[in-house]
Order: sequence, then C-alpha cells, then structure tokens
Amino acid sequence: MKIQPLADRVLILPAPAEEKTIGGIIIPDTAKEKPLQGQVVAAGNGTKDEEMILKVGDQVLYGKYSGTELEFEGEKYLMMRQSDVLAVLK
Amino acid sequence: MKIQPLADRVLILPAPAEEKTIGGIIIPDTAKEKPLQGQVVAAGNGTKDEEMILKVGDQVLYGKYSGTELEFEGEKYLMMRQSDVLAVLK
Amino acid sequence: MKIQPLADRVLILPAPAEEKTIGGIIIPDTAKEKPLQGQVVAAGNGTKDEEMILKVGDQVLYGKYSGTELEFEGEKYLMMRQSDVLAVLK
Amino acid sequence: MKIQPLADRVLILPAPAEEKTIGGIIIPDTAKEKPLQGQVVAAGNGTKDEEMILKVGDQVLYGKYSGTELEFEGEKYLMMRQSDVLAVLK
Amino acid sequence: MKIQPLADRVLILPAPAEEKTIGGIIIPDTAKEKPLQGQVVAAGNGTKDEEMILKVGDQVLYGKYSGTELEFEGEKYLMMRQSDVLAVLK
Amino acid sequence: MKIQPLADRVLILPAPAEEKTIGGIIIPDTAKEKPLQGQVVAAGNGTKDEEMILKVGDQVLYGKYSGTELEFEGEKYLMMRQSDVLAVLK
Amino acid sequence: MKIQPLADRVLILPAPAEEKTIGGIIIPDTAKEKPLQGQVVAAGNGTKDEEMILKVGDQVLYGKYSGTELEFEGEKYLMMRQSDVLAVLK
Repeated sequence: MKIQPLADRVLILPAPAEEKTIGGIIIPDTAKEKPLQGQVVAAGNGTKDEEMILKVGDQVLYGKYSGTELEFEGEKYLMMRQSDVLAVLK
Repeated sequence: MKIQPLADRVLILPAPAEEKTIGGIIIPDTAKEKPLQGQVVAAGNGTKDEEMILKVGDQVLYGKYSGTELEFEGEKYLMMRQSDVLAVLK
Repeated sequence: MKIQPLADRVLILPAPAEEKTIGGIIIPDTAKEKPLQGQVVAAGNGTKDEEMILKVGDQVLYGKYSGTELEFEGEKYLMMRQSDVLAVLK
Repeated sequence: MKIQPLADRVLILPAPAEEKTIGGIIIPDTAKEKPLQGQVVAAGNGTKDEEMILKVGDQVLYGKYSGTELEFEGEKYLMMRQSDVLAVLK
Repeated sequence: MKIQPLADRVLILPAPAEEKTIGGIIIPDTAKEKPLQGQVVAAGNGTKDEEMILKVGDQVLYGKYSGTELEFEGEKYLMMRQSDVLAVLK
Repeated sequence: MKIQPLADRVLILPAPAEEKTIGGIIIPDTAKEKPLQGQVVAAGNGTKDEEMILKVGDQVLYGKYSGTELEFEGEKYLMMRQSDVLAVLK
Repeated sequence: MKIQPLADRVLILPAPAEEKTIGGIIIPDTAKEKPLQGQVVAAGNGTKDEEMILKVGDQVLYGKYSGTELEFEGEKYLMMRQSDVLAVLK
C-alpha cells in the first residue's frame, strides 16, 4: 500500500535532525526546531495551474511551518504543496 | 435515498478511531482527536475549475479540520471539497 | 407574486425541525439549533462563472450558517448561493 | 436632474417600514430595523464582468446592511451593487 | 501646470459643505462631516480592466471615506479610483 | 552604477520638504510629515499585467505611506509600484 | 552539490553589513539591522505567470523582511521570490 498525493502535493520524508549536514546545509539558529530538508517520496500529478517539477527522489528544502505531518508504517512524513518547496538540491 | 455532493465535493465515511491501522497509517500525537483517514462514498461532478479525480471507494487522507459533519441513517460522514483531500491510499 | 432569486442564488424552504428524519438525515449534536435540510423553491439563472445545477423541488443539504433568512406569506425561507449548498438528496 | 449609477450599481427607493406587506414579505424579527424591500429607480450600464439584469421599476429584496444611503429631493435612497440584490419580486 | 491622474483615477473638486443643495442632494445625518458630491476636474486614461466613463465636468457622488486628499493652488481636491465613484448627476 | 527597478516599479526622488511649492501643490495638514511629490529617476520595464506609463523625469504625486525608502550616493529615494503613483504633473 | 530554487525564486547571498558601500548604497536608519543588498547566486526557471528577469551574478536590492534564511556550507543565504526583489544595480 502506498500514499498517492492529490493534485500538486508531494509527500516528503524529512531528513533526521541528527543528519543536519547532508549537502552541507545547516539550519539557521532561528529554525533549529525542525528539519528543513527532506526527500520527495511521492508526488501528485499536478493541476491545470501547477505542473509538477518535483520527482520522487528529489532532495528538497522547505520552510519550517510548511506541510501537514502524517505517520505511515512507523515513519513520519510531511505532505505539502509543490509551491511550498523552496528548492531542489542537485 | 442517497446523498449526491454538489460541485467538487466528496462525501467521506471516516475510518473508526479504533481501526487506526488500515494501511499502516497512524495519526500523529497532535492529531489524535479525529480520524484522518476515510473512504469516499459519494462524489460530485466537478466544476469548470476542478475536475474530479476521486472516485467512490477511494481510501483517502484528509486534514483533521476539513469538512462538514453530517449524520445519515445512523452513520457519521464528512462532506468536503476534493481540494481538502490530501492523498489517496493505493 | 413570486420571489425570483438573482444570479446563482436559490430560495430554500427549510425542513421543519420536527421533521428531522426526511431521508434519514439527522443533524449532529453540534448543529441542532437549525435545520440543515430543505427544498429548493426558486432558483436564479446562474452567472457566467456558475451554471445552475439545482432545480425547483430538489431536496438539499446546507451548512447551518448559510444564507439570509426571509419571511414570505407566513413561511420562513433561506436565500443562499448555489455554492453554499452541500448536496442534493436523490 | 437625475442620478445615474455607475458600473453595476442600482439606486433603490426602500419600501417604507409601515408598508411591510407589499408582496406579502415580512421582515424576520432579527432584521426589523431596516426595510429589506425596495424599488429600483435607476441602474448603471453594467461592466465587462457584470451584465445588468435589474431594470428601473423592479421590486427587489436586499440584505439589511447592503448599500450606501443618500438623500435626494427629500427622499432617502440606497445605492448598491447589483450583486448585493438578492431577488426580484414578480 | 496641471494634475494628470494615472490609470483609472479621477481628480475631484468637492462641492463646498455650504452648497449642500446642488442637484437637491442632501447628505444624510450620519455623513455630514464631509461633502459627498463633487466635480471631476481631471481623469486618467483608464486601464486594461477599467475603461473610463467619467469625463471632466461630470458632477459625481462618492462615499465619504473615498479618495486621497491633496491641495493644489489653494484648492482642496480628492483623488480616487473611478470604481469609488457611486454615480453621475445628469 | 545605477539602480534599475524591476517589473512595474519606479524609483522616485522626493521633492525636499522645504520646496513644498513646486507646481503649487501644498501637502494638506494631515500629511505634513512626508513629501508627497517627487521625480521619477528610474523605471522598470513593466509586466504582462502593467504597462509602464511613467518615464524618467516625470513629476509625480504619491500617497504618504507608499514605497520603500533607500539611500544611494547620499540621496534618499523611494521605490514603489507604478500603481501607487497617483498622478503626473504636466 | 548546489541549490536549485523552484519556480520564480532566487537564492541571494546578502552583502556583508560591513560592506555597506558597494554601489554607494547606504541602508537608511530604520533598516540598519539587515543588509538590503545582495547577489543572485541561483535562480529558478520561472512560472507560467512570472518570467525570470534576474540572472546569476545580478546585484540586487530587496526589502529587509523579504525571503527565508538558510545556511549552506557555512554561508548565509536568502531565498525569495523574484517579485520581492526591488531592483538590479547596473
């Protein structure tokens, strides 16, 4: 069983707080409570107004209040709209 | 007699709180008051701006403050817009 | 003399509070103050953005704060936009 | 001299509070402070987005907080947008 | 030197408070602090979305909180958008 | 080096407060804290929705809370959108 | 590894506060807490509604509350939408 996001949403697996140095990104002091980096694990099909750019596997940055938390098979994920994703790490 | 949602709305039968493990999804601590998973039991015909993706029978995830509660033949349902549905479980 | 709603509005005759069981729908506890079910007794001609789906005679469900109350020939009605109607009972 | 409303506005002469029974409409208890019925005495030419449906002479219903009051040759009028008019009495 | 309003704005010379009877319009009690009538003395060229209907010389009515006050050669004016003008007196 | 405003923004050099009589415009009492007149010293290229009407050299009027202040080579400027400019002096 | 902004966002390396005189721009007194100038180090591909004008290497001015801070390989950056960038220095 898998989660298929609707419309222009993506499901993100946040990077663990310990692993703050993937890609050399460090979360600034004012944002330390939550990870700001994660991996896209599922993506919607987009909408008439929003084509999907993000793909499964993308390492992404997002704002710390973005998304809705959900837990699936013991792992915590974030569901958010593509427009709340700030950047892809390449 | 049956309920036919208007426009881009869907009628959802929430999963009982006891049955928190359908699909392995567990509601995170901050959201335990209400089920976040349910089944689409009726769907509108969409609008000019919103085509219907959801079909009757879809298992869906939704935010805990989404929708309007209503009771029909002893069962409690939620009526919400398709855009308030976060994902489909496949 | 009759009331012709403008644009995408409908005039609804709410079901009496006593008759809470038409179609088996019961209003949940938190919404008991007002009927949530009624019958369309007049409908506008729609607008460029909103085509009319509702017809006179439709049994409808609506949110409890929807519409403007008005009294006509001793009967109390609600005037609301079609988009505030949640569903049709069929 | 006459008042020509601009755009999608109409000028309405409210029915006197005493004459609450034109068309059999009675204002519900919560709305008794102001008349809710009146006659269109002048109408704008509409806009690109809003075609005029109302004509001079139409008996209309409107919400009690709609419009801007103005006094002309000793008579009190209401100027409002057509979209604030709820219905026409026919 | 003259003031050329930009876009869909008009420059209005308010009727003096003493001269409350031009066109027979009297400002209702709740609006006595400021004149509601004035003359268009300059008009913009409109925008893609708003064609200009008002012309220099038009006697207009406007809401009492509309526009920005400015003083030019000893005279006080109001600059406002055409959509804030309620009606033309003809 | 020069400042090139982006999109539909203009860079304005406010008229000094002492020189309140350029064009005979006097700032009304309630607006005396800041100059309301200035000269366009740089303009953006417009956007799909907003064509540029203002040109470098235009004397303009603007609301007293409009724009973002910035200092460049010892001179104070205001950066604002063209739509915040009220009028051109001709 | 590099940061690729999504949509119409740009990644900006703020000019150090000490180096307040690049281009002769001085931040006004009310805005001294944060630099207002920086260099575009990465840019998105734009959207249907917003074509990208900014290029990597552009020296830009931006409002002091614009953007989201992030730290990458020991350097602090700002991620913001192109529409929050006020001007390019040329």
